Amino acid sequence: MAGKAKNMVIAQSGGPSMVINGSLVGAVLAAKKAGAKIGKILGARHGIQGILGRDYLDLRKVSVKKLTAIAQTPSSALGSCRLKPTAEDCRKIFEEFKRLNVGFFFYIGGNDSADAARIVGEEAEKDGYPLVVYHIPKTIDNDLRSCDHTPGFASAARFVACALKGDDLDNRALGGVKIDIIMGRDAGFLTAASALARENKGDGPHLIYLPERPFSLDGFVKDVQAAMKKYGRCVVAVSEGIRDAKGELLAKKFANGEKDSHGNLQLSGTGALGDYLAGYLKAKAAIKRVRADTFGYLQRSFPGVASEVDLMEAVQAGCAAVLMALKAAKGVKDVPVKGTIGIQRAKGRTYKPEYVALPAQAAAKFTRSLPDKFIAKSGHDVTKAFLDYAKPLVGALPHCEIF
Amino acid sequence: MAGKAKNMVIAQSGGPSMVINGSLVGAVLAAKKAGAKIGKILGARHGIQGILGRDYLDLRKVSVKKLTAIAQTPSSALGSCRLKPTAEDCRKIFEEFKRLNVGFFFYIGGNDSADAARIVGEEAEKDGYPLVVYHIPKTIDNDLRSCDHTPGFASAARFVACALKGDDLDNRALGGVKIDIIMGRDAGFLTAASALARENKGDGPHLIYLPERPFSLDGFVKDVQAAMKKYGRCVVAVSEGIRDAKGELLAKKFANGEKDSHGNLQLSGTGALGDYLAGYLKAKAAIKRVRADTFGYLQRSFPGVASEVDLMEAVQAGCAAVLMALKAAKGVKDVPVKGTIGIQRAKGRTYKPEYVALPAQAAAKFTRSLPDKFIAKSGHDVTKAFLDYAKPLVGALPHCEIF
Repeated sequence: MAGKAKNMVIAQSGGPSMVINGSLVGAVLAAKKAGAKIGKILGARHGIQGILGRDYLDLRKVSVKKLTAIAQTPSSALGSCRLKPTAEDCRKIFEEFKRLNVGFFFYIGGNDSADAARIVGEEAEKDGYPLVVYHIPKTIDNDLRSCDHTPGFASAARFVACALKGDDLDNRALGGVKIDIIMGRDAGFLTAASALARENKGDGPHLIYLPERPFSLDGFVKDVQAAMKKYGRCVVAVSEGIRDAKGELLAKKFANGEKDSHGNLQLSGTGALGDYLAGYLKAKAAIKRVRADTFGYLQRSFPGVASEVDLMEAVQAGCAAVLMALKAAKGVKDVPVKGTIGIQRAKGRTYKPEYVALPAQAAAKFTRSLPDKFIAKSGHDVTKAFLDYAKPLVGALPHCEIF
Repeated sequence: MAGKAKNMVIAQSGGPSMVINGSLVGAVLAAKKAGAKIGKILGARHGIQGILGRDYLDLRKVSVKKLTAIAQTPSSALGSCRLKPTAEDCRKIFEEFKRLNVGFFFYIGGNDSADAARIVGEEAEKDGYPLVVYHIPKTIDNDLRSCDHTPGFASAARFVACALKGDDLDNRALGGVKIDIIMGRDAGFLTAASALARENKGDGPHLIYLPERPFSLDGFVKDVQAAMKKYGRCVVAVSEGIRDAKGELLAKKFANGEKDSHGNLQLSGTGALGDYLAGYLKAKAAIKRVRADTFGYLQRSFPGVASEVDLMEAVQAGCAAVLMALKAAKGVKDVPVKGTIGIQRAKGRTYKPEYVALPAQAAAKFTRSLPDKFIAKSGHDVTKAFLDYAKPLVGALPHCEIF
């Protein structure tokens, strides 16, 4: 990598989050600060589609003022995509990278995006194209194996906790059962975060159903009836990813069969699961007032509720990726050329994040679930260990007072 | 009303809002300040049900610190109900009021609650029971004829506008069509508020469907196709109360038939309308990515997004009701004994609210719709006049930056 400084391409992929632009801006600012070590800073629009379609923004020309505002804006400012690159796509990408003298590629996203970055990295190696590839973690699902927690999660968790707080007060006023469907295809972290809403004795959610424990309709009816007896009302947080004893997604009954190129079934953007559960409860449990809401895309895009810690970490993860990529380009030992940024929690009493460089495959393909230690024995609640884990990430919530 | 100071009962009714507790606290603080003119300050739990069931809170004993926190907490802190009092209920209420020496009754709620207050007032007159009754306006629907705007609306509008802002950014990132179903059974004010989300050229919502204009599925498909052609994507705000050319609610196709004692069909708490429109669009317009979210109860209960102007006005409307009731008890001319607080907009360049006492029937039974001057000629957008009307109520929204 001698001679003229290599240029970099950065892009965003997968579902947006409230802080994914923080990582974009963190990486751009770090690249600018690196001076002559990096040439052009190109933002590809709509992920690798923007590379294939030669659609770029020159991010070095964007003012710091504008970048700062972008960092605080939800959703993916460069646009996103859900595309698993084929070997042929990769050939085209490298032709394009060669044309543009690109030596650094940064891809911000979840585990599918990490896998896309891994594929690009491996194909580059096969082709002998010199490329430093870094995945920058992002997912509201919090299911990357490479991170203690992932940028985007805490802000979505903050939205969910605030929503449950308000919804629980609403249920206190009018009674009956309220079911809230929360995002998280395979991992229950976000649904678990609903427990952060509790402030006073008797506060909901009174039941929390996670993808990690089998869901039975009969058990659900019994649990709700028991909660109604105890509290005179019941607020239920349900993951969109709940499964029956055979591991079959309940939402599959209602899914339209639409899948992305990574093979993921579309679950969000429909209220069918909530409506089904509400209807079932009315019919079987003879409870008059049952309502269901599906929080949908607001969980990842609502402006003004991002967690401060989350936004800061998103920016820092972006910075870290560029610093690690530069080290890798210099051949620093133990810094992978095809990497991902892991976020770890420093040991000690005060919460502190640490950023490390890991091989790209650490974040790719396989995801993690909510660990057993975070799930209550009942199977429909979380433990104190989960609350201790999540609270420093999500931050203080608005105080709600009751009589 | 000579002799020992009469006691007062205050209660909340109908759907909660983010600021209805502001009106409760405003009334309680005004009553405390009135000194010996009012005896006990009793809060009935769950509206008139609390009177019938003798379930009260002694609000004079609640600290100002706690009251201040209650005022800033969403939902109805005393609990709510949806009950239209019968003549027999009224007899029981007056027996109870007599037992407790109650001379003042305040009821915070929308037009059904105003009607309940009117009924109580009229029955009291029939029975010769001396009672000053004041309705305090609240509704996120903004459909009271007695108000320029109603406490609760601006905060719900703020939630809707923020939600659309984030959702529009999300749609920019991944494309396709996004449909958002917004509350408002008969009036389009809240759906219209989605237009406040627009900040940059091309921002959504690109289409706004209101209950005040007939909705046709064919027209909808054509409108979306035109927007897709123009913007390459489309964000649609749809009122839950949209009707076909015959005036039939579209949501009626999916409603479970549940009605409250005022005869209102349950529309919220189900995602069926959004799912139906998304499915229809996919089938007829051959658009691949179509998603629908139904904002549901979050619109009226989400903590931390209340409009400052709205909260202040809710408090002031509560204060005004007590001051007017005291005047009415003294026999001041033109101050009705059975009244409601009207909120008017003072003439002039700077926004300023004014509070007036009106006869109770001014808010009861009949509602108002979004006026023609607020609806664009196309029928699927709002006018500048609406934005000028709503902006000072809703306040500044989080700035979102795009490339």
